[in-house]
Amino acid sequence: MKTIDVCLSPELMHLYDVRDRTVVVVDILRATSCMVTAFAHGVESITPVANLEQCRKMKTQGYVISGERDGKKVEGFDKGNSPFEYLSDEVKGFKIAFTTTNGTQAIEKSKEAKEVIIGAFLNLNAVARYLLLGENNALIVCSGWKGRVNLEDTLFAGALVEILKEYLGPDCDAPLAAQYLYNLAKNDMVSFLNTSSHVRRLNKLNIHDDIKFCVTPDQYKVLPKLKNGVLVA
Amino acid sequence: MKTIDVCLSPELMHLYDVRDRTVVVVDILRATSCMVTAFAHGVESITPVANLEQCRKMKTQGYVISGERDGKKVEGFDKGNSPFEYLSDEVKGFKIAFTTTNGTQAIEKSKEAKEVIIGAFLNLNAVARYLLLGENNALIVCSGWKGRVNLEDTLFAGALVEILKEYLGPDCDAPLAAQYLYNLAKNDMVSFLNTSSHVRRLNKLNIHDDIKFCVTPDQYKVLPKLKNGVLVA
Repeated sequence: MKTIDVCLSPELMHLYDVRDRTVVVVDILRATSCMVTAFAHGVESITPVANLEQCRKMKTQGYVISGERDGKKVEGFDKGNSPFEYLSDEVKGFKIAFTTTNGTQAIEKSKEAKEVIIGAFLNLNAVARYLLLGENNALIVCSGWKGRVNLEDTLFAGALVEILKEYLGPDCDAPLAAQYLYNLAKNDMVSFLNTSSHVRRLNKLNIHDDIKFCVTPDQYKVLPKLKNGVLVA
Repeated sequence: MKTIDVCLSPELMHLYDVRDRTVVVVDILRATSCMVTAFAHGVESITPVANLEQCRKMKTQGYVISGERDGKKVEGFDKGNSPFEYLSDEVKGFKIAFTTTNGTQAIEKSKEAKEVIIGAFLNLNAVARYLLLGENNALIVCSGWKGRVNLEDTLFAGALVEILKEYLGPDCDAPLAAQYLYNLAKNDMVSFLNTSSHVRRLNKLNIHDDIKFCVTPDQYKVLPKLKNGVLVA
């Protein structure tokens, strides 16, 4: 890797030339955490789909259809957006079509990148090692919430920057801001995130355990990667 | 005021409906710091101008023309972008046409707002008091650097959020992130900013004193406000 940079919202992606970069898409709560968990339990592929209708149609083609809108599982879908739904060998061999409010939109916007990989705290070191051994510049793309910046994705970016800080580029302060915030939060990320807008949104849905799980580093070594529009391990 | 929110880059402004808001435009290094200093020393008006050519033409109409591109004074212009150029009663009564890389562009993008005011550390409390006494929602718009997020504008947003934290809206984490960063930096902002991309850019221009001055809170009580496209005190 040559340099690492951070894009705090998919709405800022036009400022970055991604054609020579490895893009790390992150949506800690909870799309990319689900994806990493799913691949760690043997899922064969995940096809990110931007809209609900397209996802629904894929059910007839043998896909398990998964997704959420505004944090809630979509009616008629097989699975929602909690990593615990993917935390068993029962999902082995599944081909999943996945649509979420933010994460799958960020993947869609990253398609021009030289390479797209999926990051979460759950596979933090696998991502860091992959970037380190690679030759491309890296851009961490935070999925945010409907275009706005969120804390949890920013903290993940900060954690990755902290590991790879020798490679910080000179152009932008977003990586520095993320790194400062991560170092402030790292000893108790769950409490730190209790103030965040999305956690407050999700608390209404009773998913405290999801949050705790999603900020646990290095549970898995899998590295999901986009190949011809489909994520594979 | 009802709620306060923070937009970390002018490129994210489309996510906010500003028609019912007082927008605080901030470009700490150094456009809005210059503007506040200039009004504190009796400047009559500042017309923000997005491009160089338009600004040049205004010289023949009796304007003092000021501005920078990439941190440097523009050739043929009367003044540049250092607050020290506006720090004397010599500027009293001046009508200035001002164009900068980021700050005047952020003002341009804010024109649909109900109200646009100019913020800097130099008039921090004047801004806070004005927002507090007003009835509009507030949005702090950080000018950033060519669309990217920067630390110094984020710190100012954090300082303002820290004062007005009772009014934090639930929608977005940018105000929280800014507030955390400000509290981390507040005891020595100059050192904190030494790592920032823009300060490194500016250090090459030998303007350490500018930076120190621009992060000094509450030197002035003026509150520049946009009226029909022209800033007045």
